[in-house]
Amino acid sequence: MATNEQIYFKPEKLKAFAVSVSMKYGLSKGDAEIFIDNLIDANLAGVDTHGLTRLSIYLKRIKLGLINPHPVMTFEQKFPIAAVLNADNGLGQIAGEKAVRKAIELAGTYGLGAVAVRSSQHFGALGYYCNIAAQNEVICLAFTNAEPALPPWGSYEAYFGTNPLAMGVPMKGEIPVIIDLSTSIVARGKIISAAKRKIPIPEGWALDPEGNPTTDAEKALAGAVLTMAGPKGYALAMMVDVLSGVLSGSGFGKHVHSMYKDLKNGADVGHFFLCIAIEAFMPKKNFYERMKTMRDEIKNSAKREGVDEIYIPGERKKKIKSERLNTGIPLSSDVLDELKALAKENNVTWDLD
Amino acid sequence: MATNEQIYFKPEKLKAFAVSVSMKYGLSKGDAEIFIDNLIDANLAGVDTHGLTRLSIYLKRIKLGLINPHPVMTFEQKFPIAAVLNADNGLGQIAGEKAVRKAIELAGTYGLGAVAVRSSQHFGALGYYCNIAAQNEVICLAFTNAEPALPPWGSYEAYFGTNPLAMGVPMKGEIPVIIDLSTSIVARGKIISAAKRKIPIPEGWALDPEGNPTTDAEKALAGAVLTMAGPKGYALAMMVDVLSGVLSGSGFGKHVHSMYKDLKNGADVGHFFLCIAIEAFMPKKNFYERMKTMRDEIKNSAKREGVDEIYIPGERKKKIKSERLNTGIPLSSDVLDELKALAKENNVTWDLD
Repeated sequence: MATNEQIYFKPEKLKAFAVSVSMKYGLSKGDAEIFIDNLIDANLAGVDTHGLTRLSIYLKRIKLGLINPHPVMTFEQKFPIAAVLNADNGLGQIAGEKAVRKAIELAGTYGLGAVAVRSSQHFGALGYYCNIAAQNEVICLAFTNAEPALPPWGSYEAYFGTNPLAMGVPMKGEIPVIIDLSTSIVARGKIISAAKRKIPIPEGWALDPEGNPTTDAEKALAGAVLTMAGPKGYALAMMVDVLSGVLSGSGFGKHVHSMYKDLKNGADVGHFFLCIAIEAFMPKKNFYERMKTMRDEIKNSAKREGVDEIYIPGERKKKIKSERLNTGIPLSSDVLDELKALAKENNVTWDLD
Repeated sequence: MATNEQIYFKPEKLKAFAVSVSMKYGLSKGDAEIFIDNLIDANLAGVDTHGLTRLSIYLKRIKLGLINPHPVMTFEQKFPIAAVLNADNGLGQIAGEKAVRKAIELAGTYGLGAVAVRSSQHFGALGYYCNIAAQNEVICLAFTNAEPALPPWGSYEAYFGTNPLAMGVPMKGEIPVIIDLSTSIVARGKIISAAKRKIPIPEGWALDPEGNPTTDAEKALAGAVLTMAGPKGYALAMMVDVLSGVLSGSGFGKHVHSMYKDLKNGADVGHFFLCIAIEAFMPKKNFYERMKTMRDEIKNSAKREGVDEIYIPGERKKKIKSERLNTGIPLSSDVLDELKALAKENNVTWDLD
């Protein structure tokens, strides 16, 4: 299909373009760079659903006054080791990075640190923030809620978001372990992508608004995506929402607004970061040795028929990132069309072809 | 089948008997009561796989010198808000209760508290400890590793335990939310139970030691149980083991020893508790109101065909507990035979019939 054809672009060229466009919407250069680095990192890691495909909707929401390009983000603290960041309806990527850096700092001082974020937006892949913590040699648990997509077990009404949870574990001199998974049977981005391309989705992923199983991506987006592992995914989605939605003071459940469908209200997404200093439990050196043993034992496990390699969580994305740093980032022609439209609309030169 | 026939017993009578038997193995009265309360609570909640069915193996391991009936459990602290409890190879139920109470106390003082436990045993259902935290109005995340059962994704070699994770959320004046799930496609206890009863297990649950799918419970126990939701369950099992095994200083992965199969080594199981004070983020009153809103919205979600009621995680177990407090605890005849054998072996009067 012509719409699936992909062209490769240098990440630094894409970044320069996307930063210029974003600044036309009132973002400072610094904020635009944090924002775009996050999107491009998702593309580099192969998580294209969280990459530049979302640029135009974020910018559209700024234009409509639904995202604040000049937020005054403030930390509210009642105990030294915990904080709530009021994101002031600014971009989630800016809020997320501020919050995880604060949690890392708190863990460094006290051994543990937790930061909840309220009044935020969809903020990209959780693994991005866990990776920042891992680079700072801190273990990080991260959670975010999202617009309604998943029904409670037994219902067909979308209530919870695909509410991912993540963990970053530093590995001295090696690729950190980055666990990052949604509590839905499939990432919602894949259904959005299928809807954009007008292709069907597999059976068993979703229900239509009347509660019937469907393979129509549009109907799935209007209805509900199923939870992973049935009732367990429901329970985990609730776990994520209690921390990132209820406890942060942000929207939760159906009170989180849709990025694509609700063009009247701020999204009111919440996040939660919990950082753990290794040295609060054991010397870092011992921890790294033990992690290396675990890693090596997993890599050397007996393989099932047809399996070439056993991957550690995060390893495959790191591999794709290395490849794409060489080959460039492939963009589908529909994303490309969106970027070109943004260039035209905002009088920014398009010199990437 | 005759072996599935169940007879009902009053919990307080079962407790008195089981405490008396346990004391014959050198446990103090206080420790025996903590131990047996935990097992009986599992039976009351309908989690019979973690109840009195395990009494004889715990006691057998004490007799063989593989569990220490007189442990000296000590907290090691490097930071005020975190601790490692060396369980000294004592019963996991004693260690777990000490650890969660410490984490609750730390969260009360500092806003957050984390306690890792090393050199412990299988310690029953995680929900039991989360419930203690909820009764103390503290949010709790709990993790434990377990003997090898799950292969890394792509392998057929059991490496991780069924590594459950759990969360307790207090609900003022209502049943707390207790999320408690294993990262396996099914609780291993169900396979142990099928093996005891010599009945087959459903397809898709497990692999035999050669990596072939099997419905034979014995072969499944010798081989590997599959992870829930494929690679996601693998990632979550690793998350649990990094916290409860690697970071605690306990055994991890295949270095955790089997309770039933390894009668030469201590189990070296590790646990991890993380407690969060609500008031570090928002006034308790607001939090309870918000949780009640979430609860009510979930309960009132539109039901799928054939569904009578939508349950909040933990609600169904609480309901079973209320019923069993009235009807008594049903024990299958095989568990009953084990208890009677313990009575005879230890000269304890059996007056429960």
